[in-house]
Amino acid sequence: MPELRRDPVTGRWVIFAIERARRPADFASEEIDPPAGNCPFCEGREAQTPPEIYASRRQGSAPNSQGWRVRVVSNKFPALRIEGELDKAGDGPYDRMNGVGAHEVFIEGGEHASTVTSIPADTFREAVRAYRERMVDLKKDRRLAYALIFKNVGRRAGASISHNHSQLIATPVVPIVVKQEMEGAKRYFELRERCIYCDMLRHERGAKSRIVADRGSFVALSPYASRFPFETWILPSKHVSHFESTPDAELDTFSDLLLTVLAKLERALGNVPYNYVFHTSPFVDGPVEHYHWHVEIMPRVTMTAGFEWGSGFYINPVLPEDSAKFLANGSH
Amino acid sequence: MPELRRDPVTGRWVIFAIERARRPADFASEEIDPPAGNCPFCEGREAQTPPEIYASRRQGSAPNSQGWRVRVVSNKFPALRIEGELDKAGDGPYDRMNGVGAHEVFIEGGEHASTVTSIPADTFREAVRAYRERMVDLKKDRRLAYALIFKNVGRRAGASISHNHSQLIATPVVPIVVKQEMEGAKRYFELRERCIYCDMLRHERGAKSRIVADRGSFVALSPYASRFPFETWILPSKHVSHFESTPDAELDTFSDLLLTVLAKLERALGNVPYNYVFHTSPFVDGPVEHYHWHVEIMPRVTMTAGFEWGSGFYINPVLPEDSAKFLANGSH
Repeated sequence: MPELRRDPVTGRWVIFAIERARRPADFASEEIDPPAGNCPFCEGREAQTPPEIYASRRQGSAPNSQGWRVRVVSNKFPALRIEGELDKAGDGPYDRMNGVGAHEVFIEGGEHASTVTSIPADTFREAVRAYRERMVDLKKDRRLAYALIFKNVGRRAGASISHNHSQLIATPVVPIVVKQEMEGAKRYFELRERCIYCDMLRHERGAKSRIVADRGSFVALSPYASRFPFETWILPSKHVSHFESTPDAELDTFSDLLLTVLAKLERALGNVPYNYVFHTSPFVDGPVEHYHWHVEIMPRVTMTAGFEWGSGFYINPVLPEDSAKFLANGSH
Repeated sequence: MPELRRDPVTGRWVIFAIERARRPADFASEEIDPPAGNCPFCEGREAQTPPEIYASRRQGSAPNSQGWRVRVVSNKFPALRIEGELDKAGDGPYDRMNGVGAHEVFIEGGEHASTVTSIPADTFREAVRAYRERMVDLKKDRRLAYALIFKNVGRRAGASISHNHSQLIATPVVPIVVKQEMEGAKRYFELRERCIYCDMLRHERGAKSRIVADRGSFVALSPYASRFPFETWILPSKHVSHFESTPDAELDTFSDLLLTVLAKLERALGNVPYNYVFHTSPFVDGPVEHYHWHVEIMPRVTMTAGFEWGSGFYINPVLPEDSAKFLANGSH
């Protein structure tokens, strides 16, 4: 069972996931991407993953057999585990708890491919629906406070397997980054009685200079204080605090826009490593007026070094106006 | 002049340092480490850097000539610039300011070397004294709120030049990471009327399991909630809120311990990329009871991916007790 420990000053939690005792020299040779002939995510190798939790598959095909387009399985080396009661305890001047939670993998397509542009739009829509279904299901588990959906693409962005996939990690506490974002949005709401993201959208649609694509119900933009070159956010135009309350038709518009933006990044930057992360309200909150769910896409073309770690400042060599112009036009 | 922009939700600042217009394809070919024959940090190539601000050099040798052991120069591509008045302004719903600050480079030894173990202990002591002298000097500038001292080693930790060096960036606002740490320490102090770091030191010296080295006036330890394998902090045993108030004799003990720990990491992990970052109280604060300066050393053997970015959680495969045992013994 993984152990969670809390830094007493900042309140950030660390998950100690000790699969096996490792000596320092072991780190260098780690995380070899399995080749196509041995990839556990490929169709036909279903037995190499834990059993599926959810799948979109050909009618009549049996679970854990071929015939699927999207499969959701538990991570083979989970950061957190779904079994057991939550147990919080003190440890001298510190706090710890056991690693209750969920760690799931969304495999997007059975074909061995590592570029999102090779995922059919329909399959991607099904993957995004799977995100929502898993959120709705995990939300029923009262031990869980939050679920984070994210995608790592490329070694430098933390991917150890290149076959297209996303992940979900559900945690027994609201993560500190989420808490800080919720608090910031709440402060703005208390001052102005308006959602800061709604205000931002209105401003950006007026200014136009940072809009990457506008699909009516969803907007893709380069945020004013982008940390990274070509950082792009996608937000629903209407105020909605929780991703999982998005209805089917809107979800499809969102999926298509997300896929379009990823394809733009892939075309513009080559096989750039990147992460995307869903930002949504905690399970424990009902619909809230101050927070607005969205996705943040972070290309990893610059390095985060000592200055970023120590300050929380970022140094970005590209203005978001230039990023947006570039991505909106799609030239390269 | 670089432009600073503030994210309206989280309050984090981003420095837009646009040296030149860059197209996306330019990012791939960047940051080639100059070879020994063309390194601007080597002795004899003083003309290739901006003029020196501070140096420890052979008696009688002229500034910007040979004969130095440590040189401090402005960064050739500074994230922030020392010239001009601070100008803060609104920008629609956002906030921005101009990039007033300082960005300095500490060159540690004139010989082309990229391992700290190749820096003589005396030279490293002089570099650490240079950190302090630059802090003391910059603190007089009322436009500056904070100075962050850090070292990036290895490409993956953000270093673009391999010749041994550290950096200092002084900012016109207190960085958000520092502010959050100060607030966390203050909350603890308000509750208990004790410094959390003093409490931590007392506990760790009693428990012993996470101590890497104890030199009396300074302690190196693996923190309880280490984010990274072999993460190590060095703290003064006595409560001191500001690094720059450390007297000479103690500073030398600190330098020697820092060099020892870096050498242990180099031996244990090979040429591992790492960062170290000084955590100290803002210029604007007088001595405070709740904050305790220290250095955090972060080896970059694991990747930070979507989960870490979105949550502020970290996943660490090595317990600090194991890291400490390993580093304390120095085996490999």
